[in-house]
Amino acid sequence: MYRTHNCGDLRISDVGQQVILSGWVQISRDLGGLTFVDLRDRYGITQLVFNMDENQSLCELARKLGREFVIKASGKVRERSSKNPNRPTGDIEIEVSQLDVLNESKTPPFTIEDDSDGGDELRMQYRYLDLRRTPLQQNILFRSKLAIETRKYLDGQSFVEVETPVLIKSTPEGARDFVVPSRMNPGQFYALPQSPQTFKQILMVGGFDRYFQIVKCFRDEDLRADRQPEFTQIDCEMAFVTRDQILDTFEGLTKHLFKELKSVSLSDFPKMSYDEAMRRYGSDKPDLRFGMEFIDFAESMKGQGFGVFDNAETIVGIVANDIAESYSNKDLKNLTEWMQRPQIGAKGLVYIKYNQDGTIKSTIGKFYDDEFLLKLAEKHGAKKGDIIFMLSGEDEKTRKQLNELRLEMGQRMGLIKEGDFKPLWVIDFPLLEWDEDSERFHAMHHPFTSPKKEEISRMMNGDHATMKSLKADAYDLVINGVEIGGGSIRIHDRELQSKNFDLLGFTKEEAEAQFGFLLGAFEYGAPPHGGIAFGFDRLCAVLNGKNSIRDFIAFPKNNQGRDMMIDAPSKIDNIQMEELFLDSTFKPADS
Amino acid sequence: MYRTHNCGDLRISDVGQQVILSGWVQISRDLGGLTFVDLRDRYGITQLVFNMDENQSLCELARKLGREFVIKASGKVRERSSKNPNRPTGDIEIEVSQLDVLNESKTPPFTIEDDSDGGDELRMQYRYLDLRRTPLQQNILFRSKLAIETRKYLDGQSFVEVETPVLIKSTPEGARDFVVPSRMNPGQFYALPQSPQTFKQILMVGGFDRYFQIVKCFRDEDLRADRQPEFTQIDCEMAFVTRDQILDTFEGLTKHLFKELKSVSLSDFPKMSYDEAMRRYGSDKPDLRFGMEFIDFAESMKGQGFGVFDNAETIVGIVANDIAESYSNKDLKNLTEWMQRPQIGAKGLVYIKYNQDGTIKSTIGKFYDDEFLLKLAEKHGAKKGDIIFMLSGEDEKTRKQLNELRLEMGQRMGLIKEGDFKPLWVIDFPLLEWDEDSERFHAMHHPFTSPKKEEISRMMNGDHATMKSLKADAYDLVINGVEIGGGSIRIHDRELQSKNFDLLGFTKEEAEAQFGFLLGAFEYGAPPHGGIAFGFDRLCAVLNGKNSIRDFIAFPKNNQGRDMMIDAPSKIDNIQMEELFLDSTFKPADS
Repeated sequence: MYRTHNCGDLRISDVGQQVILSGWVQISRDLGGLTFVDLRDRYGITQLVFNMDENQSLCELARKLGREFVIKASGKVRERSSKNPNRPTGDIEIEVSQLDVLNESKTPPFTIEDDSDGGDELRMQYRYLDLRRTPLQQNILFRSKLAIETRKYLDGQSFVEVETPVLIKSTPEGARDFVVPSRMNPGQFYALPQSPQTFKQILMVGGFDRYFQIVKCFRDEDLRADRQPEFTQIDCEMAFVTRDQILDTFEGLTKHLFKELKSVSLSDFPKMSYDEAMRRYGSDKPDLRFGMEFIDFAESMKGQGFGVFDNAETIVGIVANDIAESYSNKDLKNLTEWMQRPQIGAKGLVYIKYNQDGTIKSTIGKFYDDEFLLKLAEKHGAKKGDIIFMLSGEDEKTRKQLNELRLEMGQRMGLIKEGDFKPLWVIDFPLLEWDEDSERFHAMHHPFTSPKKEEISRMMNGDHATMKSLKADAYDLVINGVEIGGGSIRIHDRELQSKNFDLLGFTKEEAEAQFGFLLGAFEYGAPPHGGIAFGFDRLCAVLNGKNSIRDFIAFPKNNQGRDMMIDAPSKIDNIQMEELFLDSTFKPADS
Repeated sequence: MYRTHNCGDLRISDVGQQVILSGWVQISRDLGGLTFVDLRDRYGITQLVFNMDENQSLCELARKLGREFVIKASGKVRERSSKNPNRPTGDIEIEVSQLDVLNESKTPPFTIEDDSDGGDELRMQYRYLDLRRTPLQQNILFRSKLAIETRKYLDGQSFVEVETPVLIKSTPEGARDFVVPSRMNPGQFYALPQSPQTFKQILMVGGFDRYFQIVKCFRDEDLRADRQPEFTQIDCEMAFVTRDQILDTFEGLTKHLFKELKSVSLSDFPKMSYDEAMRRYGSDKPDLRFGMEFIDFAESMKGQGFGVFDNAETIVGIVANDIAESYSNKDLKNLTEWMQRPQIGAKGLVYIKYNQDGTIKSTIGKFYDDEFLLKLAEKHGAKKGDIIFMLSGEDEKTRKQLNELRLEMGQRMGLIKEGDFKPLWVIDFPLLEWDEDSERFHAMHHPFTSPKKEEISRMMNGDHATMKSLKADAYDLVINGVEIGGGSIRIHDRELQSKNFDLLGFTKEEAEAQFGFLLGAFEYGAPPHGGIAFGFDRLCAVLNGKNSIRDFIAFPKNNQGRDMMIDAPSKIDNIQMEELFLDSTFKPADS
């Protein structure tokens, strides 16, 4: 036997018991005739004591233990003379009578402490050591609990977890697929699912009524810090359901998770249309933890002879409170440059500084006199000490740029309270997006999303040019400016689905080849249905107030899609290539 | 709103309520002035009534409903005059006042009933219709419940569910990998995991103590009826644990699942060594639901002048009770031919028929006189009316052949009671298997399995030729002759692991390239650990007394690895091929 208890078990009530513990040496200290060893496992840390007077050879063995050695210690629980109130086991220690070294350890390349001194790549390479650190271990335990509570809630709502296949079919719509060559079907490939979308719809046609799955999905995209080639979704679908029933159900799930995991009681989630979100925040995922809503300055500013504004489609701004004193000219110049970086691409940044002494300082002072600007400020709710920031230009672009400024200022001005959670349903998304490059429509959500009921006849019969304004029965859940998930009511009618494929530029043959099974299924009694998917990795991060999902994934990949620990991907045998009827056309530069 | 209740909800106590139901038309019957429609959903069937006298147009609409139409019906719950006691809703019916056809349905290509008239391939092609059949739907619901109860039990035992990656590294050991070309790392491939084996061991090194995952695994094998290219495992690992603690834990899980899902209380599972199982049943997964244990006839039969037996390594047989009367010469000839099929490959089948009248009839009557055979029969417990079957030859082959005969006779003789469950732990497997073809050792379980403790020094220092007899700390759970899962205590010492790779024919470089991360991990405080994996699909089938796993998978593939519904795998775009730096060497016959 390796242990009678784990390292987090023992309490003052256990004093006198003979116990066996196993774990890792966190630290070892020699104090005169005594050696103390902190023994660690997933459950906690327990102090071991060795006494030079009582058992010299044992104590000498203990003194040789290095960090991260794995040991087994038998002994008696006794009360500590100096207690550690910060540790659940801090009232006791183990007077060790027998010690076995189960495995030695080389000195780790970084410290196994809450704040490690290891760099990202090094920690990914030695992930087994990084995973021993308490914060990372807690993240992974948190993730496990989040999955348990998700399943508990959905099971309680009659959802059935159904596993959908991982080896499916490649469809060029959407992001790039990872593909898997088939040995048994030469020249053909499976694809890994970007989501189980069509399968969950098929399950609705199959009468499963309420489906969910916590499921791995795959996208072969160029990676950013918060993207992974494989990621996890809470994937759901319901039949005979209205939009609001879906939103209520998943608002219920979200509240349950916050309650159980964070002891946070969320109020009912507000709903906001996509159009309103773009108008008020320039974003379809507004962060509602602070104000600074967009103000439309067009009416006030136009027709005053300032050409840039007069010719602009949109003039929009925000009021930043109480920063006029603290923002120097240099600060404002830096901020302007920050806005002009290619990531944001603003041409410039107009500001109107309404100083504490009542004076005005502005980049557009040449075009508008102080009295005008003072009135303008007052009219739009700016007070002494505030700065108005303004951008102008093409509507969509300008709002997006101002959104970046609003978020940045919210951060800089400390408007975001830690532990504050502001969920929001964004609804009524456009059905289609016009893509200038390919000169065709793309699905804003995906090709299976239904237009709103009142839009169907227009969609079936209307003019192609007017399709851009079609609204979809699609929705996103946004928390603190992060998109947690999204979904829609789906099309369940063959004609409407065909029309949508048509608008998206599929030929009849392409639609049939790729989604014939779904179109077929719609002819055999498909019920009305809709669903949603939450990004599970991101939900973990948001619940913990973190930005990066990587620390909530046990074995993440780096930005080149590599697993640094196992060193994958890698070359495969020629035999494997031959069996799969494959040749590589890649010629390394040095060959 | 589509419904106030589902089709399984309503009872006599709901009489008088106005309700709305939605679902599929199971069947519709016209009886004089009344039309009855059975409305079906996942939860049950409710009868709708339409009255020609009261609402002619509605009744006419109802008469036009076809099978599998999706409808919504509003009306009042009333007591039925002729009740249906076989249906939970059988006391009531709905007097319909409004009817909406939500979707029509073409006539399904097979009947949506418990026993469908559709063939396998047709049902797979129209899986959405097949999934509407109650037995299949019940199987998938059962699977969902089995997963819930598995998680509940393991969570209660402090196991953490950790997701391991799906995009990993190809290793030539074991079965064939499915591979995934990497676009970002040209010329390189990921592999899909055959199991999360090394990752779960890494999690133990990372201090997670108890890990589990219900996880998809992948093997590119030529398929048999009970194999799928993707399958699901309950995958587990524990640190600081002895073999018996693992067995106890998963015996506990198995008992819990039988109790919760089948209301069956299993007794404690017996343990049997691999050697004993081979001796008594000729199989490492004996079906203990019936007897017919092997009898060693060598001592009795040798030295009597019958050359075939005298020269045989093994002479082994079984006694089949009470079939002497019913098995004609022709039956025995047929049985002999059945044994001689290439799948079994017996040279012949010796029988000794101990007739009810006390006479003997035997295929070896020429070599052994009746008196000898009579004595032999009595000595080995055969009674009047029994037949003794005997095989001789090379030990391993002969026992395997006799195992087939034993199982066949158990079936034919009706010795297997329906609903009987006989679990067994098979322990102490050999560590290595000698492969004649490749002239090297293979791992019987996998390369990470530890030899039994008392074997370690022999393994490290012994002669290569003696390694075949090394026993591993490996175990299988067998229920009713089906292997549900298996596992082992793992190696956690770098030297021992290197020695094992060495015995398995890995060069130092190969071992380092493929498993260097694991060998490295063993140097940084790897704890003693072990684990197990259960085949989840098979567990579903065995719990329901079924042989095929296919009916417990929502979207299975056929024997060519094809998904018949979505028609995958398929060709991919040339652009995709180019992006992946791939060429296909496959030339179709007709090009």
